[in-house]
Amino acid sequence: MSFSPLINQLISAFKYLPGVGNKTAQRMAFHILQRNKEGGRQLAQILAAAIAEVGNCSNCRTLCELEICSICNNPARDASLLCVVETPADIVSIEQTGSFRGKYFVLMGHLSPIDGIGPEQLGMQYLRSKLQQGTITEVILATSTTVEGETTAYYIAEMAKGLPNITATRLALGMPLGGELEHLDHSTLARALNQRSKVV
Amino acid sequence: MSFSPLINQLISAFKYLPGVGNKTAQRMAFHILQRNKEGGRQLAQILAAAIAEVGNCSNCRTLCELEICSICNNPARDASLLCVVETPADIVSIEQTGSFRGKYFVLMGHLSPIDGIGPEQLGMQYLRSKLQQGTITEVILATSTTVEGETTAYYIAEMAKGLPNITATRLALGMPLGGELEHLDHSTLARALNQRSKVV
Repeated sequence: MSFSPLINQLISAFKYLPGVGNKTAQRMAFHILQRNKEGGRQLAQILAAAIAEVGNCSNCRTLCELEICSICNNPARDASLLCVVETPADIVSIEQTGSFRGKYFVLMGHLSPIDGIGPEQLGMQYLRSKLQQGTITEVILATSTTVEGETTAYYIAEMAKGLPNITATRLALGMPLGGELEHLDHSTLARALNQRSKVV
Repeated sequence: MSFSPLINQLISAFKYLPGVGNKTAQRMAFHILQRNKEGGRQLAQILAAAIAEVGNCSNCRTLCELEICSICNNPARDASLLCVVETPADIVSIEQTGSFRGKYFVLMGHLSPIDGIGPEQLGMQYLRSKLQQGTITEVILATSTTVEGETTAYYIAEMAKGLPNITATRLALGMPLGGELEHLDHSTLARALNQRSKVV
């Protein structure tokens, strides 16, 4: 015995969300049906609208319901700096620092041959033609410091090496602010030591 | 700066789900938009359908898209036994034990004056008229063993006391199977001691 068919279907559908198992899906279904039908109605409607309308920015590939996203469309941003990130969420993180005034390119993932994600899936051909246009002078590789992220950064660095007047840079590796030395992992500490800078 | 308007709306809408904060909502939105549009489409559709169609069983008050739920409609179930539970999920738990062949009444909550939940909100008037019909001989109070659950059970027990030929019972309190004595809380252990039974 279980719930009525429609409730069972709803519980199954909630499991499409990441990190949602059976118990959580059940709690979500009952919460919405018992206490927040209005919220559920809005979620259903916005979800359908977002799925129908959100695509990728035709310039930087970020998720966006417009043809060109607001950053690509902003003439005040420095077009000679291109920051390559893995996901749209990374753009938000970098924008929140207020330290970057260039433009972005979103890979929507990282190289992962085992999952069938190669250069084409990440739009490397678009990135290459962007770099070949001659406007960009620096490409900042802001992929993750995981094995896949490093491999992806290396791939793009190699691509940039073949093009004239483009410098490829990588985010600095080292101790995080507020980090305690004894809790830092060995690899990061080794990198921080190797790349130590002079105190002025 | 943040995401495009529709993506921001989607992230906000996911926060209507219980236990979903900003980071989780963001992860859900990107997962659906990047990797599982089909799942998202199904979720939107089933959610809208469930909100439109699921109501309460007119007999036992459980969540159900039918007028009368399948348990209430089953003539093989013993109509003289009524098990009172707090939520539809409790019915599933009890059904899974295979130890109960009676019918249910779902309060859809527990008495909680501070949240404005009194006897009417829990449908106590329907429960009273059910008990007055004369079919039911035993009402099993299967509410939680929290303060609110105990209060709710006490309220129903008092109601049953005034009616002829109805026994109110409560689920046994004691050690859980596989429980270790040293890890048991004091109140449960005290109840288990007081209600000890003779070994035959």
